[in-house]
Amino acid sequence: MMDTVVQSQNTLKTPAYAAQTAKAALAPWSIERREPGPHDVLIDILYCGVCHSDIHQARDEWGGSIFPMVPGHEIIGRVVKVGEHVKKWKPGHIVGVGCFVDSCRRCEACRAGEEQYCELGMTLTYNGYERDGKTPTYGGYSTQITVDENYVLNIPKGVPLERAAPLLCAGITTYSPLRHYGLKEGDRLGVVGLGGLGHMAVKFGHAMGAHVTVLSHSPGKRDDALKLGADDFLVTKDEATFKENAGRFDFILDTVSATHDYNAYLGLLRRDGIMVLVGVPEPTPLSAGALIMKRKRLAGSLIGGIRETQEMLDFCAANGIAADVEVIPIQGVNEAYERMLKNDVRYRFVIDLASLKAAS
Amino acid sequence: MMDTVVQSQNTLKTPAYAAQTAKAALAPWSIERREPGPHDVLIDILYCGVCHSDIHQARDEWGGSIFPMVPGHEIIGRVVKVGEHVKKWKPGHIVGVGCFVDSCRRCEACRAGEEQYCELGMTLTYNGYERDGKTPTYGGYSTQITVDENYVLNIPKGVPLERAAPLLCAGITTYSPLRHYGLKEGDRLGVVGLGGLGHMAVKFGHAMGAHVTVLSHSPGKRDDALKLGADDFLVTKDEATFKENAGRFDFILDTVSATHDYNAYLGLLRRDGIMVLVGVPEPTPLSAGALIMKRKRLAGSLIGGIRETQEMLDFCAANGIAADVEVIPIQGVNEAYERMLKNDVRYRFVIDLASLKAAS
Repeated sequence: MMDTVVQSQNTLKTPAYAAQTAKAALAPWSIERREPGPHDVLIDILYCGVCHSDIHQARDEWGGSIFPMVPGHEIIGRVVKVGEHVKKWKPGHIVGVGCFVDSCRRCEACRAGEEQYCELGMTLTYNGYERDGKTPTYGGYSTQITVDENYVLNIPKGVPLERAAPLLCAGITTYSPLRHYGLKEGDRLGVVGLGGLGHMAVKFGHAMGAHVTVLSHSPGKRDDALKLGADDFLVTKDEATFKENAGRFDFILDTVSATHDYNAYLGLLRRDGIMVLVGVPEPTPLSAGALIMKRKRLAGSLIGGIRETQEMLDFCAANGIAADVEVIPIQGVNEAYERMLKNDVRYRFVIDLASLKAAS
Repeated sequence: MMDTVVQSQNTLKTPAYAAQTAKAALAPWSIERREPGPHDVLIDILYCGVCHSDIHQARDEWGGSIFPMVPGHEIIGRVVKVGEHVKKWKPGHIVGVGCFVDSCRRCEACRAGEEQYCELGMTLTYNGYERDGKTPTYGGYSTQITVDENYVLNIPKGVPLERAAPLLCAGITTYSPLRHYGLKEGDRLGVVGLGGLGHMAVKFGHAMGAHVTVLSHSPGKRDDALKLGADDFLVTKDEATFKENAGRFDFILDTVSATHDYNAYLGLLRRDGIMVLVGVPEPTPLSAGALIMKRKRLAGSLIGGIRETQEMLDFCAANGIAADVEVIPIQGVNEAYERMLKNDVRYRFVIDLASLKAAS
């Protein structure tokens, strides 16, 4: 559609932090945002969460990275300008932008409101291309962004803004599978890994009425897990854990991206239980018997569509849920990456973009 | 319960074929069946299907085999005697016995009619122990068997008896997952492997109104697949098949026990599709991305409970479904094993036990 095509003649100079190559640290750079078209919203970015996938992509660990790269897909901001046909948003609205900023809008997935599974591929918020297939997208490590109105989310009143940012990725990535695969009140939920994703899964599981157990390699996370809303905590370093808890869970949400033995975790499921993967380790040997013997399911889930992301944000507001964050200036983002690699964050770094505006 | 305990003083001498060790061919042997207790049924065995798992167990390929072993868990016979409390069965009834002859009857699975998932373990029809934990069970390569009335199935009129035998394992193993995981009319079903299990899956899928495609390594099976009711046939030797048919199926039933790449087959599923494993290859590397990118599920399924097995038999009678078989005398069973290992059977050998009675 013409009105979503980038108009190179009308651009807005925008300070950002970018990785120029896979080996380079993030450093100040300047990008150009498009002037809002008739269906666009221009957003002044207030906060942007730092997702582990930012590191993978900035360092080209998944392959195919597009440089220079401005990461960031957990964006909270204030609408400052809207296109002439935009009805939903007005200047002053507090909004969010998640992992994608467009999709084909015509395929079965898009029509079903599952834009994340767009058959032609969603337009990633960064490290992607606009629908024209050639204009690179740049993410939230920047001071402003122009987004089509249909890919913008309302941030309900009452959610602290810096704590809302991680909901746009870590939040929906864990909320969606719990809803889609039908976590029920009273279900015994196991959350594998207590990081950015896991800590949100605990909060959601608790709010949905499940009995939540955190499974973690780190005994030191027990107190945190219980404070976040978990009912129990199991240390997975100990092999006896897997024997003693065989058949215990109705639902396991596995947020871990480090290699681990799926079969061992499947053993913790009861008959007809389900384990959902949201992390992407290296391919791991799977034993068919681990699924067959008690009719278990292993499933995957990828973020969530716009409609469900809005539902999740409203659920957070209604249940007093937000991410636990450590706010940093953008000048600290490289150090934050290093700390994340050491698992030294509870539980999400969030960049305060005022730091970039002040420096520009 | 006392009345299901074997009474060693009251036994019925019964000709059988047994493997004395993992290395031995099957050969004539004599076993003793218990006289029917108050809840037991004594069955004169007419036919017994030869399942691939008979070979695995007789050769101790899964470990833990109990010798001497009398294989056979696809049993069709005629009731000849019933215990005093048996109400459901009368002499002359044509009945079936499948993969198990007892279970704990008290656990959640048993109470749900899913005895195959009994938490204390079902009593396998052979290569197992009765509930006393010490009396070995012997299967259908024999002339008669005594079974508790609750673990006996009615063979509806109209199903040819020799063709009914494989329904007790190959039939229910494929029927159950199609039902449990909700195959719908009009769904695009892929059946991987066209052997004893696969050929039943084609018949069931077709009868349930699905558009059935057989995926096989053997181009020579195309005609057979179409005759069995498949709408299409894909040769999986060719890598292009996986590219050209990406996202094609709603449901894949994977009956193959040889190692194959699950990720490649998962690529054939559409968004929210499910692939169900009923074969048990060696552990195979699984890529989380293969499940995450289009929210797919990989599941398992193990035979079926008594109630569902009866439902399957009734479905077969109502839809004119039975297995395609080659009837053999028991004296030909070792040769049949060799032919099965070469995939040279369309699609199930069934032993006519008259051959054993005549020789005894």
